[in-house]
Amino acid sequence: MPTSAIGIDLGGTNLKACIMNKTGEFRHLRRRPTQAQKGGPAVLDTIMRMIETVLADEGGSGGILGVGIGSPGFVDEDGTVLGGAQNLPGWEGMQIFEPIKSKFGLNVTAGNDVTVTALAESCFGAAKEVKNSVTLALGTGIGAGIVVNGKVYKGTHGMAGEMGHVIVETNGRQCTCGLKGCVEQYASGTGIVNVAREMCTSFTPQKPSTLARIALENPSGITAKLVYEHAEADDPYALYINDYICHKLSIAIGTILNSLAPDRIILGGGIMKSHELIIATVNKYTPRYCWNSIWERCDIVPAKAGENAGVLGAAALVFEEMEG
Amino acid sequence: MPTSAIGIDLGGTNLKACIMNKTGEFRHLRRRPTQAQKGGPAVLDTIMRMIETVLADEGGSGGILGVGIGSPGFVDEDGTVLGGAQNLPGWEGMQIFEPIKSKFGLNVTAGNDVTVTALAESCFGAAKEVKNSVTLALGTGIGAGIVVNGKVYKGTHGMAGEMGHVIVETNGRQCTCGLKGCVEQYASGTGIVNVAREMCTSFTPQKPSTLARIALENPSGITAKLVYEHAEADDPYALYINDYICHKLSIAIGTILNSLAPDRIILGGGIMKSHELIIATVNKYTPRYCWNSIWERCDIVPAKAGENAGVLGAAALVFEEMEG
Repeated sequence: MPTSAIGIDLGGTNLKACIMNKTGEFRHLRRRPTQAQKGGPAVLDTIMRMIETVLADEGGSGGILGVGIGSPGFVDEDGTVLGGAQNLPGWEGMQIFEPIKSKFGLNVTAGNDVTVTALAESCFGAAKEVKNSVTLALGTGIGAGIVVNGKVYKGTHGMAGEMGHVIVETNGRQCTCGLKGCVEQYASGTGIVNVAREMCTSFTPQKPSTLARIALENPSGITAKLVYEHAEADDPYALYINDYICHKLSIAIGTILNSLAPDRIILGGGIMKSHELIIATVNKYTPRYCWNSIWERCDIVPAKAGENAGVLGAAALVFEEMEG
Repeated sequence: MPTSAIGIDLGGTNLKACIMNKTGEFRHLRRRPTQAQKGGPAVLDTIMRMIETVLADEGGSGGILGVGIGSPGFVDEDGTVLGGAQNLPGWEGMQIFEPIKSKFGLNVTAGNDVTVTALAESCFGAAKEVKNSVTLALGTGIGAGIVVNGKVYKGTHGMAGEMGHVIVETNGRQCTCGLKGCVEQYASGTGIVNVAREMCTSFTPQKPSTLARIALENPSGITAKLVYEHAEADDPYALYINDYICHKLSIAIGTILNSLAPDRIILGGGIMKSHELIIATVNKYTPRYCWNSIWERCDIVPAKAGENAGVLGAAALVFEEMEG
């Protein structure tokens, strides 16, 4: 009886693969550059070669239940990529299940990259003990994954979780999606950088802080990491920026709480390296934006499944969907 | 083997009870005034007497699987009312399962009134053919019920679905929940009346329409029904009001679509008597507020389960939770 699954984590920069058993123990972790610019068929080809590699490491496919792929954007149930993966040119429209099935004789499933990360948090990480959770990935953009009654919720055609586009300010910052004021334009890595540059250069610089001086001299040197390094060193501009962006994030979290009343919100992604300050600030503002009875029964915690959450969640999807 | 369930629909004004089989056929439909002002214990007593009555109609409890109650606000899994039912003084804090269990020997479950309505739409109404749906009840306030993979999603402690409090305008109209700009302040019955009064009396009344003249003479005569009667007669003020409130509603629906990517949004409640105009206007604005790939795969339709949706959904909850 198969006891393991192959997980594939497809990112704009790197591709990861591994073999995992049901309890989350993994082996044969491999990583390669995605080389997204080579186009969809080349990316699929790299995925096929990675599956070949981990199967060789494993010594065959006898114990493998199936292949799970975490991908940016939306993948339909039949393996058609429906779009939403801006950093993977030529990925949209591809049929990604059939070639893997026919070459390796393995069943394939897929989910949005943040959706599978949320599953990893539910199976092995910060949402292990609860039934209902929403994981927000604060990275270059913002995505969400929803777990309902212990099972991942993909939405119709795998499209659920675009909570980066909850509007938190009417006529606010212009978003790449066409809307204005999406939370992604404030609390993602890109959003933080843009907010920080504006704030540092538009304040009357009578007494600029260290961060503000850096921004005034070289605006393009500002990164989210730099902002949070300065916030942790009590730079007043950096602290104000943190407060502002966490306030916006809290409005979106309030909407999620009122809508879904999960047991737990998990905050992950690159931004969360400064998680103590972010969690504290979000805990300050969120109760203003949701029902008290819901707030009292939900907590907001940092992600715990680690840097391999994507590849492990992709493998976990195989157990969730193909077992018994 | 039990083949029927008792449904109870608890409203601020009326209480309904019936016995239903799994396919939605019902009998012994009873209705009584809730007499909410008499307090929680008196309301529970009325529910007990209605169960007694429908059991007498039925000739015994032999074929009954259990009792399902649809209630305003939040009811915890163990039958404790957690709050959220402003129109039922003294209902919060009650334990409503134990007295029914011990008197009739029947298992009891409960759900928010809109949640069970959403289940009725999923089992017997407008969401029958789809897996994932969100039902919005546009009544005095706005509530939502979520169905995920064909099953009702109650959220932790039964608190999901407060989508009437999605913020659609930053620093907008003051809501009773403490927030500003909640969609409920625009697109509920109360919201429509308030918006209509303001618009009709604040426009320069050089050429007031029929509706505007009524509002100028007697602002308290304005009702949502009156607004929509005039909109259907092409009154320009009424049409503008419809456009304005449906635009706000569309922002909230866009958030729901991006977050949950359901197959279908169902609009119900008293306001939806003018459903053709509302559906058409919402279909005009919603695509501006969500991802195109999600919009293309979702439709927005009027409710179909009818005036007994609440009591039938409450009974359907018994089959969903207690069967097999």
